[in-house]
Amino acid sequence: MTDNNFNQPLGGNQMPRFGGPGTMFRLPSSDISNDLDIGILGVPLDIGASNRSGTRFGPRSVRNESVLVRPYGMYTKAAPFDSFQIADIGDAPINTFNLADSIRIIEEHYDTVMASNIKPVTVGGDHTISLPILRALHKKHGMMALVHVDAHADINDSMFGEKECHGTIFRRAIEEGLVDPKKMIQIGQRATGYSAGDFQWAVDRGVRVVQAEECWLKSLAPLMEEVREIIGGDTPTYLTFDIDGIDPAFAPGTGTPEPAGLTSPQALEIIRGMWGTNLIGADLVEVSPPYDTSGNTSLLAANLIFEMLCSFPGCIRR
Amino acid sequence: MTDNNFNQPLGGNQMPRFGGPGTMFRLPSSDISNDLDIGILGVPLDIGASNRSGTRFGPRSVRNESVLVRPYGMYTKAAPFDSFQIADIGDAPINTFNLADSIRIIEEHYDTVMASNIKPVTVGGDHTISLPILRALHKKHGMMALVHVDAHADINDSMFGEKECHGTIFRRAIEEGLVDPKKMIQIGQRATGYSAGDFQWAVDRGVRVVQAEECWLKSLAPLMEEVREIIGGDTPTYLTFDIDGIDPAFAPGTGTPEPAGLTSPQALEIIRGMWGTNLIGADLVEVSPPYDTSGNTSLLAANLIFEMLCSFPGCIRR
Amino acid sequence: MTDNNFNQPLGGNQMPRFGGPGTMFRLPSSDISNDLDIGILGVPLDIGASNRSGTRFGPRSVRNESVLVRPYGMYTKAAPFDSFQIADIGDAPINTFNLADSIRIIEEHYDTVMASNIKPVTVGGDHTISLPILRALHKKHGMMALVHVDAHADINDSMFGEKECHGTIFRRAIEEGLVDPKKMIQIGQRATGYSAGDFQWAVDRGVRVVQAEECWLKSLAPLMEEVREIIGGDTPTYLTFDIDGIDPAFAPGTGTPEPAGLTSPQALEIIRGMWGTNLIGADLVEVSPPYDTSGNTSLLAANLIFEMLCSFPGCIRR
Amino acid sequence: MTDNNFNQPLGGNQMPRFGGPGTMFRLPSSDISNDLDIGILGVPLDIGASNRSGTRFGPRSVRNESVLVRPYGMYTKAAPFDSFQIADIGDAPINTFNLADSIRIIEEHYDTVMASNIKPVTVGGDHTISLPILRALHKKHGMMALVHVDAHADINDSMFGEKECHGTIFRRAIEEGLVDPKKMIQIGQRATGYSAGDFQWAVDRGVRVVQAEECWLKSLAPLMEEVREIIGGDTPTYLTFDIDGIDPAFAPGTGTPEPAGLTSPQALEIIRGMWGTNLIGADLVEVSPPYDTSGNTSLLAANLIFEMLCSFPGCIRR
Amino acid sequence: MTDNNFNQPLGGNQMPRFGGPGTMFRLPSSDISNDLDIGILGVPLDIGASNRSGTRFGPRSVRNESVLVRPYGMYTKAAPFDSFQIADIGDAPINTFNLADSIRIIEEHYDTVMASNIKPVTVGGDHTISLPILRALHKKHGMMALVHVDAHADINDSMFGEKECHGTIFRRAIEEGLVDPKKMIQIGQRATGYSAGDFQWAVDRGVRVVQAEECWLKSLAPLMEEVREIIGGDTPTYLTFDIDGIDPAFAPGTGTPEPAGLTSPQALEIIRGMWGTNLIGADLVEVSPPYDTSGNTSLLAANLIFEMLCSFPGCIRR
Amino acid sequence: MTDNNFNQPLGGNQMPRFGGPGTMFRLPSSDISNDLDIGILGVPLDIGASNRSGTRFGPRSVRNESVLVRPYGMYTKAAPFDSFQIADIGDAPINTFNLADSIRIIEEHYDTVMASNIKPVTVGGDHTISLPILRALHKKHGMMALVHVDAHADINDSMFGEKECHGTIFRRAIEEGLVDPKKMIQIGQRATGYSAGDFQWAVDRGVRVVQAEECWLKSLAPLMEEVREIIGGDTPTYLTFDIDGIDPAFAPGTGTPEPAGLTSPQALEIIRGMWGTNLIGADLVEVSPPYDTSGNTSLLAANLIFEMLCSFPGCIRR
Repeated sequence: MTDNNFNQPLGGNQMPRFGGPGTMFRLPSSDISNDLDIGILGVPLDIGASNRSGTRFGPRSVRNESVLVRPYGMYTKAAPFDSFQIADIGDAPINTFNLADSIRIIEEHYDTVMASNIKPVTVGGDHTISLPILRALHKKHGMMALVHVDAHADINDSMFGEKECHGTIFRRAIEEGLVDPKKMIQIGQRATGYSAGDFQWAVDRGVRVVQAEECWLKSLAPLMEEVREIIGGDTPTYLTFDIDGIDPAFAPGTGTPEPAGLTSPQALEIIRGMWGTNLIGADLVEVSPPYDTSGNTSLLAANLIFEMLCSFPGCIRR
Repeated sequence: MTDNNFNQPLGGNQMPRFGGPGTMFRLPSSDISNDLDIGILGVPLDIGASNRSGTRFGPRSVRNESVLVRPYGMYTKAAPFDSFQIADIGDAPINTFNLADSIRIIEEHYDTVMASNIKPVTVGGDHTISLPILRALHKKHGMMALVHVDAHADINDSMFGEKECHGTIFRRAIEEGLVDPKKMIQIGQRATGYSAGDFQWAVDRGVRVVQAEECWLKSLAPLMEEVREIIGGDTPTYLTFDIDGIDPAFAPGTGTPEPAGLTSPQALEIIRGMWGTNLIGADLVEVSPPYDTSGNTSLLAANLIFEMLCSFPGCIRR
Repeated sequence: MTDNNFNQPLGGNQMPRFGGPGTMFRLPSSDISNDLDIGILGVPLDIGASNRSGTRFGPRSVRNESVLVRPYGMYTKAAPFDSFQIADIGDAPINTFNLADSIRIIEEHYDTVMASNIKPVTVGGDHTISLPILRALHKKHGMMALVHVDAHADINDSMFGEKECHGTIFRRAIEEGLVDPKKMIQIGQRATGYSAGDFQWAVDRGVRVVQAEECWLKSLAPLMEEVREIIGGDTPTYLTFDIDGIDPAFAPGTGTPEPAGLTSPQALEIIRGMWGTNLIGADLVEVSPPYDTSGNTSLLAANLIFEMLCSFPGCIRR
Repeated sequence: MTDNNFNQPLGGNQMPRFGGPGTMFRLPSSDISNDLDIGILGVPLDIGASNRSGTRFGPRSVRNESVLVRPYGMYTKAAPFDSFQIADIGDAPINTFNLADSIRIIEEHYDTVMASNIKPVTVGGDHTISLPILRALHKKHGMMALVHVDAHADINDSMFGEKECHGTIFRRAIEEGLVDPKKMIQIGQRATGYSAGDFQWAVDRGVRVVQAEECWLKSLAPLMEEVREIIGGDTPTYLTFDIDGIDPAFAPGTGTPEPAGLTSPQALEIIRGMWGTNLIGADLVEVSPPYDTSGNTSLLAANLIFEMLCSFPGCIRR
Repeated sequence: MTDNNFNQPLGGNQMPRFGGPGTMFRLPSSDISNDLDIGILGVPLDIGASNRSGTRFGPRSVRNESVLVRPYGMYTKAAPFDSFQIADIGDAPINTFNLADSIRIIEEHYDTVMASNIKPVTVGGDHTISLPILRALHKKHGMMALVHVDAHADINDSMFGEKECHGTIFRRAIEEGLVDPKKMIQIGQRATGYSAGDFQWAVDRGVRVVQAEECWLKSLAPLMEEVREIIGGDTPTYLTFDIDGIDPAFAPGTGTPEPAGLTSPQALEIIRGMWGTNLIGADLVEVSPPYDTSGNTSLLAANLIFEMLCSFPGCIRR
Repeated sequence: MTDNNFNQPLGGNQMPRFGGPGTMFRLPSSDISNDLDIGILGVPLDIGASNRSGTRFGPRSVRNESVLVRPYGMYTKAAPFDSFQIADIGDAPINTFNLADSIRIIEEHYDTVMASNIKPVTVGGDHTISLPILRALHKKHGMMALVHVDAHADINDSMFGEKECHGTIFRRAIEEGLVDPKKMIQIGQRATGYSAGDFQWAVDRGVRVVQAEECWLKSLAPLMEEVREIIGGDTPTYLTFDIDGIDPAFAPGTGTPEPAGLTSPQALEIIRGMWGTNLIGADLVEVSPPYDTSGNTSLLAANLIFEMLCSFPGCIRR
């Protein structure tokens, strides 16, 4: 069915879905190498999280549930495995006893990924990991556009005196010039904050903040049209998707759930709406398997990662 | 309250809901007999499933949770237990070590049911069971109309070389002339497939395929109006409802969940929208209790089965 | 950040969210005292429930999960802890072996609360507790308006021969003149009943009954405008919120779940829509932790209680 | 295989274990009738419990898991279904809103059972139920011997002012002369009490109290020899088995678990050691399914009930 | 630390335990090849099981939990990874819709394994898989000795008319001459049977059957001395370990649990007692992850598999 | 019942066990003060753990389950609340983003505790916390004796390059002279290690290491006699109890479970055997609530903490 030699997920008619390798989509595993277009990798860090832990098991669990994902999008007709050479390139070897050291290790790991011209698609881990990833990508791409789906703005100046943890990273990313706040869109923020103006710091810098209330009962296709206009088709663009942007009904397995969030159709609309941007990397973070009693949050995450693959420039539609 | 001698569910004021017999709705159990209008029965088969197992416990678990269902629909005013003689007629004795033999057993079991002029309402079990049920019903009713709610089209030609399992049955049903593809409507298909054209085989034969994306954020009442027009009021019509048609937020306990599906209000709209067709049988399949940690998927299934009863021709509205 | 000496929740930067006292929102605990504007208290009763038990653990569990709630509403800009002196005033010491005696104890406990001019915000426990609470509040406020969110009408005349349990309380409240049925609105009723006319007794007395079907796919802001008009801005108004009013997808951990209920955004719209009424008390009932495997139902409940605080007259918006 | 017409459990080769009727051991259900030697019945009461609730689901859950029990004891060679006419005679219709009324209903229900000369084997429900059962049996048998397995002595004078609940029943049974304290043995008591002398009231009346510490690392066969000597072979003897007598490692699903209890082999030794007494009834109480996440506590309970059947006088050994 | 070039498990100081490849013990994965001494592989079959399903996920789950196992036995001082070239050789691609076909596939797969002179250590899957494994090993080794740990004898002639499923395999193995019944020891059988003589068929053929009751409260070291004497040091010996041989307290996650089984220390004694036999292969079957809510059954299984590695002839003790 | 004014746990007849304050044993909470003999406190740290996380919720969960513990030991007759002034003194405010900083905070917090002459009984949190606790206690008591129950020796030199985390602390404690290795006893070590000599470093320094295998099937009372002899009655002695010393059957909810550990009766024998030493503090660590699906590990932990209170010098026996 494929018209090239790209890696294909191991199919359900070759090995039952509950067997086979423990890689994402049962793709081949690979070293970091120039032969790849896209590399899917895990960062099993959870010591940057402020409430429930457990996202350290996110990469393993999302891989486990990804066995159900098949190679073609039935609505978009997207065919990522016919379009790109994709592999599972393993996990970043974080130091689980030391957050600062882990941030350093992650950045170095992604420096290597970038040196091989691989577009990284990452599964976390807590949201802290996006900061060192953005730092590494910035070295190659310069200032990036950012689409940030999340229940929280993650723009605290510090938490418990620490400057780098899962609630501060996008203030750091803006301060360091990694992302362009005028090409940054935050979607799904809601619930309660330390002050009534918690989101203002970003707004003041030009970020488009789309609170969850603005999304209720609406298709987000028009919003994504606006997003693509804000960003433009050439700007290197990163997508960071915190699973807690989605309502806990759809994604119960996460560490800081907030009520009344996005629906899973809206999540698909957002990711599918990235098609047309110059997507150069993406992550899916904050899946916490101990709180995901059915496995369905990990399964949703695996599907979102598939949809991310479909939104990279050059993905064929059949 | 009833104006006849029909079986009534054991009421919550006679026996607390957590006690009493383990039958559906705490109805009397009955042999297969001509005295019944509708028979509710279980088919505890799960060896036709390709990913997670566990639907073998579906009939027991749906019966357990059905204790909360009361005899009148509060919105539709439907009164099925005032309208029909209904009983729990037990389970089909499948051979759990042999799928082909189980398919044979199920067909024979439903031959007996049909010989007694009972309209069967079945709780599965994986979706494989609908094929032998349709075969048995076809002997009486001829080619039927089919409303099929599901995340998947179930029209693969074969899986792992097998022609009859939970992913191939509706290709078989069309090939064998059991159902009329021009009077067949599939609702809720989505996510990923083995090829971008997985749904085309059915479309090519005249099936109306309503992907989940077409349903997002909409009432399905207009769709059901269209469905009733397609089918016509006289055609013997079967309803097969795979619980995975519904989004895993609402129905987490199933074996092959797919994100961004129907909502439970939409599920009710579909089943209520069958009122006006010549419904001659229905099934509710793919509830997998080991993945239903709260029991609420089974509870939803029990309510859907109640709504099915309300949509049979002749059901009184009060 | 606060401009007064009101109690503040222990912040996440002083003590990690998983530590600190086991009080609601990690507020100080307090005796019942005239110094408080609002008292949050628990009533750990579940022997008035007819199906699944477990709500006895509701107060503890909702307090446990409330640690994630921060002091400001990010959409409403409401600042309840800058507006009122609020404390956790502990639990009512119910007699778990005797429902009638518990009803008596609860009423006496709330007599004491009312004697201190505390506006009570209660976390249950099963819905039976609202009856003695209303009795105590009636002594101070006279006949009250009532907004009642619930999957059920709770207006049975008796259950298993008992006049006072979780399914009969609002018939009692109307009969006793505690609430004015013409200023009573029920929202979210649905599914099945003992008779097709189960809701009629209330309708006949002037209650506005908004079945769940009327709410599907709609913003409830217009409904709440109607509610405020029905009630008027001066009438002492009580809000009683049964978590099962919300769909089990969003609130799985409850004892008598019914499919196709309200969404959590709609729940927020209802409580936020109480702003503008003369709210004098509120309760959140029927959270059953043993069926809440992720803890997210308790977390939702904690957020709803926060939103209740924001809707009391005088709550500052920043 | 059987040499009579006694009811037989539905076999695993006739219907797979996950199908078939929801009765204990998949036996036929029966009305209370003189045709039975032994009746197995449920009492789904849990409002007499002081800590976790949920035992109301004990009868249903133990029946569900009992499907795995086969008709012959592989070590004892006991053949109860070749020895007695046994059926599942359903549940006692307790009033879940009123403990005192439930106690009355249970006694009346067992009066009926005794009137039919059925030996009752009961699955609870919380331990309160043993008191009305003993009252009914006392009318026929007079003062009985009692073997009582439990983590607790259940001899409080009152709890929260109530004289009859799950922690007071054996004080009542002794005071009322239902059981002979000199022929009463309590096994498995442990952990903590309201006073250091909590067990003394029973000891003072002649009860043999075997604390769990005396059982650690020992076969209980010698103890049971002593028990049989104390009781004598003719005295009508009742066995009441609280599942919390067993360590929570083996029986996690219960409401007031205490560490360092009996092992499941010791539980079997106790029940098998009843062989040789004049056993006239037995109960198994305090299984709380919401805390039994694997179902294995209910499965253990079902096996213990099977072993009880094997210890009735006249049970054939093959 | 190792004195050769054998594969080593990825260490916890190189990659945190929750990261890294999804292989057993985080060993390298390998094709079936002559370079290996021992190959660990999975057979994800569960359609041969008669009660609860779910063992299809056994291989994946045991691998997941195996990350905690380190390379040296602290009591035995055994060092398997210093002694043998060991790799994870993946899963046998069973046909989940057809038991007979799966049995054929498994045998062929093990024919290939044997052709490469790999000693197989298998993780199941239900117990059916041991039959085709033994068939393949028999071609190389001839009639083997067998140590069989299990709650059940698995010597039914047929189940539901089928000759080959998880309850019949050892009757087949004896009938076909795969194992020598005089060098076959069954340990841990218990609970209930279809007839009181269920174990007799094996005893009659010379099998040493050690019921669980004989093991209670005893070290099994003397038994294993007897086992080694029965077998002799040269006879090719296979160890098949059904996790349900162990008590459900220690191993809750299994499909047909029976009370009062072996303890986990006894399980270690058995496997360690295999040291001194000519062990040529082993399997660990019947772990059912959906019923293993803490993951600890899989973790125990992973440790048992480690201990199996330590008992192969030639394993160095340090 | 008490003969003094010491704090008493809130009794089950004053407030049902599922209500009341969220403190340990429902004792009063207190500031750190000279009025106390013993202070129970939590350290909700889990970022020092190498495998599963979640022990951050240990203090909250153990307090929740402690409601079932009553004030008197039924076997020992110990009466700690008649003997000492005991209170819940809250949690140490660790920095969850920084392990080194947390270790510093904990030490300072315990410096304050020691300044008030409070004997600390701590509930963790991961085992890292024992190191700063010992450092603080050492300032007052000098070199201490140590009884250390654990599946692991926790004497690695470093892990992932870090010198202070949950696997290295007792090497640090010996190196720093906090504990006297000749008066140090480790009990329960087992399973697998990084080298066959992992335990030797401690043995070489005089530590008495009692591997789990030495404990199987034995009363540990004789061992504890030996322990008391080794330590002597005057030496200030600390007890550190890692819940994973106990077998996962009894204590499933922990982060690095190892099979074939101590039983809960043995755990009681160890703690009760501390009676007679000069116990000056104790901790109970590594309870991980997300893996404790029944809550029973936390309940066991609460009982062990009660038993610790009973073993402090001066505890009255009644």
